[in-house]
Amino acid sequence: MLTSLQNPLVKQMRKLHRAKERREQQVFLVEGTHLVEAACAANRSLVTVCCTPEWSHQHPDLWQQIEHRAKRIEFVSSEVLRAIATTVEPDGIVATLERSSTPAPTFTSLGIVLETIQDPGNLGTIIRTAAAAGTEGILLSHDSVDLDHPKVLRASAGQWFQLPMAASDHLPQDIRQYQQQGMQVIATLPTAALTYWEADFRQPTLLLLGNEGAGLSPSMESLADVAVRIPLASGVESLNVAIAAALILYEAKRQRECPTPAQSAAVE
Amino acid sequence: MLTSLQNPLVKQMRKLHRAKERREQQVFLVEGTHLVEAACAANRSLVTVCCTPEWSHQHPDLWQQIEHRAKRIEFVSSEVLRAIATTVEPDGIVATLERSSTPAPTFTSLGIVLETIQDPGNLGTIIRTAAAAGTEGILLSHDSVDLDHPKVLRASAGQWFQLPMAASDHLPQDIRQYQQQGMQVIATLPTAALTYWEADFRQPTLLLLGNEGAGLSPSMESLADVAVRIPLASGVESLNVAIAAALILYEAKRQRECPTPAQSAAVE
Repeated sequence: MLTSLQNPLVKQMRKLHRAKERREQQVFLVEGTHLVEAACAANRSLVTVCCTPEWSHQHPDLWQQIEHRAKRIEFVSSEVLRAIATTVEPDGIVATLERSSTPAPTFTSLGIVLETIQDPGNLGTIIRTAAAAGTEGILLSHDSVDLDHPKVLRASAGQWFQLPMAASDHLPQDIRQYQQQGMQVIATLPTAALTYWEADFRQPTLLLLGNEGAGLSPSMESLADVAVRIPLASGVESLNVAIAAALILYEAKRQRECPTPAQSAAVE
Repeated sequence: MLTSLQNPLVKQMRKLHRAKERREQQVFLVEGTHLVEAACAANRSLVTVCCTPEWSHQHPDLWQQIEHRAKRIEFVSSEVLRAIATTVEPDGIVATLERSSTPAPTFTSLGIVLETIQDPGNLGTIIRTAAAAGTEGILLSHDSVDLDHPKVLRASAGQWFQLPMAASDHLPQDIRQYQQQGMQVIATLPTAALTYWEADFRQPTLLLLGNEGAGLSPSMESLADVAVRIPLASGVESLNVAIAAALILYEAKRQRECPTPAQSAAVE
């Protein structure tokens, strides 16, 4: 059992708290029972697994899967586990996975494009919500927070391993390509005349969302076919970006699952 | 200028990171320019203000207000400010306010009741979204995260000072009272037959939302007049509670601002 914080493996895993090291080592951290379970369910190989002996006894089924999937398994003390983990109270297991991420998304019905999203909790929540709403995936600008930031994984509640996602450094070209294929591009703008529930989301749609403070850049804005506004009570400046994403994705879901007003209304 | 971390005021303010100390001292921390500005806009008195001399030069208008509103003002070094603040990079100012909070909410049109909400970021985001959607306020169970947790204030983006909110230790009685006044009580349940957009939110409505992991307790569930479900793609267990709150509050807003299908559909 590893009990020393000076052990080379422990030192190497601690470095993965930093984005630069994740890029250099080409692995990232997957922390906690729920996320390790989600990684196994998505058929991902595990590079290294560190867990406490107690954890392995408490999770015999998952433990069996890990023994098949992991290149290296180490029992560690609670103290070592706390040092490796980015959470204050890890639940007994931390693993590393190779960075070769999920397949890049292909949009034909409903997709999301994110520009310069900075908060990992917001990105993770958008991933979770996008999966729930049946979105085809997420494309995000390269200057956004890293997809494999530990807080992104945590806030995604396991959907990280299910939803196709990729970072791109040529978002405008990607968007124009989808437009040529017949998708409408909808952007949220505080100044838009159209309320989001007035837009027609029954068409194939790409939703653009911008940075938490600055919103979309003018060049991204100019690509939109339709601009929509989320109405806000007076004195409220804006919504959290993950909330804005959820409202629009679920309005798309509502419109697609409900008959149109003209179809549903009985002739009286 | 205060430069020592051993200064009694500095020690006293650092203690406010803990809920127990906030209750004992009956004050709480308000961190950063934006929140201090929101507190002043809401006409709240400031107990103590600590800021760097640079901050006071950069914010002459707000500084003038603070000079009127604060019982005590101290210039502090950047190091002392970092010690007082709960954020890693405070933007130059931290204040304390008396705990006597905003007025308790009175619901007649649209209100929220939260049971055992534990994550301060979720509570803050619900406050921000509830204000944006025009909700009358929030009532939350006493075993929820403290309303004056620093992360609650931060995630509320200043709406903390605008929205009526209170903790209650007799939520069931409160709810029954509103029911007697004619409000319908709507709860979100994963097993509900009705999709949330099928419910009638044009009536006066109280929305019940439960704990992040466990949902609503059976006794709270049993109070609901209507149970609604947010549809989830297969393989997705649940949504973040702040996302769930947003979807339902904005569906209420949509229904109230849009004509009903029967009214809007032309007779063909």
